[in-house]
Amino acid sequence: MTGPSKPSDRASIRRTNLGLVLRLLRDSGPRSRARIAADTGLPRPTITNLIAELVELGLVEEGESERDGSVGRPGLSVAIDGRSICGVGLEINVDYLAAVALTLRGDVVFERRIAVDVRAAGAEAVLDAAAALIREADAAVAAQGARIVGAALAAPGNVDITTGTVAFASNIDWRDIPALDALRARLGRDAPPLRLENDAKLGAVAEYLVASASDIHDLIYVTGETGVGGGIITGGQLMRGARGFAGEIGHMPLAPGPDGHPCACGRRGCWETMVGLGALLRHAADADDPVHDPSLDVESRLADLRSRADAGDERTLAALARVAEDLSVGLALLVDVLNPRAVVLGGYFAVFAEYLLGPVREGVARRVMAADSGGCEVLPSTLGFTAPARGGAFLALDAVYQDPSGVAARP
Amino acid sequence: MTGPSKPSDRASIRRTNLGLVLRLLRDSGPRSRARIAADTGLPRPTITNLIAELVELGLVEEGESERDGSVGRPGLSVAIDGRSICGVGLEINVDYLAAVALTLRGDVVFERRIAVDVRAAGAEAVLDAAAALIREADAAVAAQGARIVGAALAAPGNVDITTGTVAFASNIDWRDIPALDALRARLGRDAPPLRLENDAKLGAVAEYLVASASDIHDLIYVTGETGVGGGIITGGQLMRGARGFAGEIGHMPLAPGPDGHPCACGRRGCWETMVGLGALLRHAADADDPVHDPSLDVESRLADLRSRADAGDERTLAALARVAEDLSVGLALLVDVLNPRAVVLGGYFAVFAEYLLGPVREGVARRVMAADSGGCEVLPSTLGFTAPARGGAFLALDAVYQDPSGVAARP
Repeated sequence: MTGPSKPSDRASIRRTNLGLVLRLLRDSGPRSRARIAADTGLPRPTITNLIAELVELGLVEEGESERDGSVGRPGLSVAIDGRSICGVGLEINVDYLAAVALTLRGDVVFERRIAVDVRAAGAEAVLDAAAALIREADAAVAAQGARIVGAALAAPGNVDITTGTVAFASNIDWRDIPALDALRARLGRDAPPLRLENDAKLGAVAEYLVASASDIHDLIYVTGETGVGGGIITGGQLMRGARGFAGEIGHMPLAPGPDGHPCACGRRGCWETMVGLGALLRHAADADDPVHDPSLDVESRLADLRSRADAGDERTLAALARVAEDLSVGLALLVDVLNPRAVVLGGYFAVFAEYLLGPVREGVARRVMAADSGGCEVLPSTLGFTAPARGGAFLALDAVYQDPSGVAARP
Repeated sequence: MTGPSKPSDRASIRRTNLGLVLRLLRDSGPRSRARIAADTGLPRPTITNLIAELVELGLVEEGESERDGSVGRPGLSVAIDGRSICGVGLEINVDYLAAVALTLRGDVVFERRIAVDVRAAGAEAVLDAAAALIREADAAVAAQGARIVGAALAAPGNVDITTGTVAFASNIDWRDIPALDALRARLGRDAPPLRLENDAKLGAVAEYLVASASDIHDLIYVTGETGVGGGIITGGQLMRGARGFAGEIGHMPLAPGPDGHPCACGRRGCWETMVGLGALLRHAADADDPVHDPSLDVESRLADLRSRADAGDERTLAALARVAEDLSVGLALLVDVLNPRAVVLGGYFAVFAEYLLGPVREGVARRVMAADSGGCEVLPSTLGFTAPARGGAFLALDAVYQDPSGVAARP
């Protein structure tokens, strides 16, 4: 603990308190100055000064008056404004790039997805396209009189967030790609502050923003794609682990031995061979069925399978039942270890939520050691495949919530 | 977020800063006022005032002068004193009660262990004995001119920390025992503030205090006894989960199917049937071997097995090798999910560390997906069976680190 010395404790306390008030308004909604004073424990005059500064920074606005249920003069309600402040999230997935720009209060002001065969295109071309997407987002945001205060890249693999390098992403065949330096070189002086994070972790962050409205602050996000990714939120914080690898849940050895299906990692019976997209397809259709054809868009193949399930096709329904059972084995293990308040199922699991949720909930409840699944609910993602890009936009905005005064400092 | 309104932000900031300085001295060791100012970012005059208050509360003292490597007048070094402030940890295990009193700076001033067949004795008699141990600790601490500011009970099972109730502890056959109320009734007006926690979680806290000296802030504590317990520290914080059940690692289904050994939970192939004490004994000795005799003290049975291993007995060594392999399967899974900086092996694993560590480290490194085990070391517990009681004493003292001024408020 040898942090840099700060200019003065007064300035540091002011920054801390600005962030405290702004996060209160984000997490608990609009409220009067009197209520903010009560919620934060700070005196009224201090709150008045802080709100004035946040208004000047363009981060909060005064809304309709409210009575707070008390006698006396009604107080003006204060809410997050931040229409002029945006963060951008950019996801690199196997077959697309997606960008989302969010205002400080969570409104989507730009959203775009382009089809790219990322593995075939190669890293240089993909980073060209990514830089072009950020420029496009910047122009769209500027056209609405707002500005971007940061951007975060979501990558499907192990990342080194300190150097901005994608260390290893097997599904797109990237290894040691200095992604942030490459983007900075392409964007030049226009580059906003850039960050990098694993896609499932950012998906977890995005789902947490939804779940926190229901007072859920401990959750596991589990996304079913070719691989199975995970992100863990504990006490409202993203768990990264000692080197940022936390959440590697796809290779839990849940069907070891000769009967286990071979995994891309070289072992047998990893959880993702039981519940990844490949497992569903394997159970649901013969090898020559078009749902296996990798040249077709994955969402259309999922839609095809979904229609079969909706039509009552027995093999498809049996495949989903099998996946649900295997999903509940791994989820119950994770719920025992982490005791989350919720598990959120994303990726293809969300597409088939109607078929998976019931048996998964039953299987988890049957297996978890604590009564009532330890209080854990199994929920479908409501964000679908946009979760990582949204999480990236939030990560980019998070710096504002940590230090609102930093907004003024940037050009 | 509707915390109680606080008297004033000045008092609240003072409390926060007192705790900040005290925790810095605990975590980073003695240092000069100038260094404390640099480390905390607070100005020198503020530090001078805070140190004066901490000295007056009996929590810090001035030691030898140090030069800080800079020119000018050497500063007096400031260190945690706190010889007059003690916390007590009291562990209820299957066949003993143990108590430890620690001073604020971590010195043991009282330690006692009594043999009790906890299941046979029944909860009332055990709580009588526990209350007597707390009184004995209190007298011993008072005889040294110090006082107890809190005590924490470590119980082997699921606990409700808000009501102070042991919800379910199968190994001692307790269910819904209001342990803290029972202790308060026995101790009367002499009762210090009491807290309750799961024993493996408190073991993790105690091991974290040791590990944090090596700058390790993310660890998993895994203790091998009849069951296998776990405690998780993430970012320096004990992970409790939504209802306090986090760390339930003994029932991971790692040998499912008909070949799995039956578990006390009713299923087959749970991890604790593979690596719990029962598994070692099963592999190492026939059913009529005295090491299986539950009427003998478990530590003497472990010492017996240990001598066999030391003498090169092949069956014992093969049993340890088998446990090491199965241990590494579950540990690698946990390391993938949590990416800790260290795994600390306690309970009987520590007794056999010499035999287990090498193959466990090799097995974990072979299985973890991230290179170099994601930076995770496998370490033996240095605290052995005293870890939970020590963790309890630390939990009791933690209130002082959170709000040092609270020390003065108590009679």
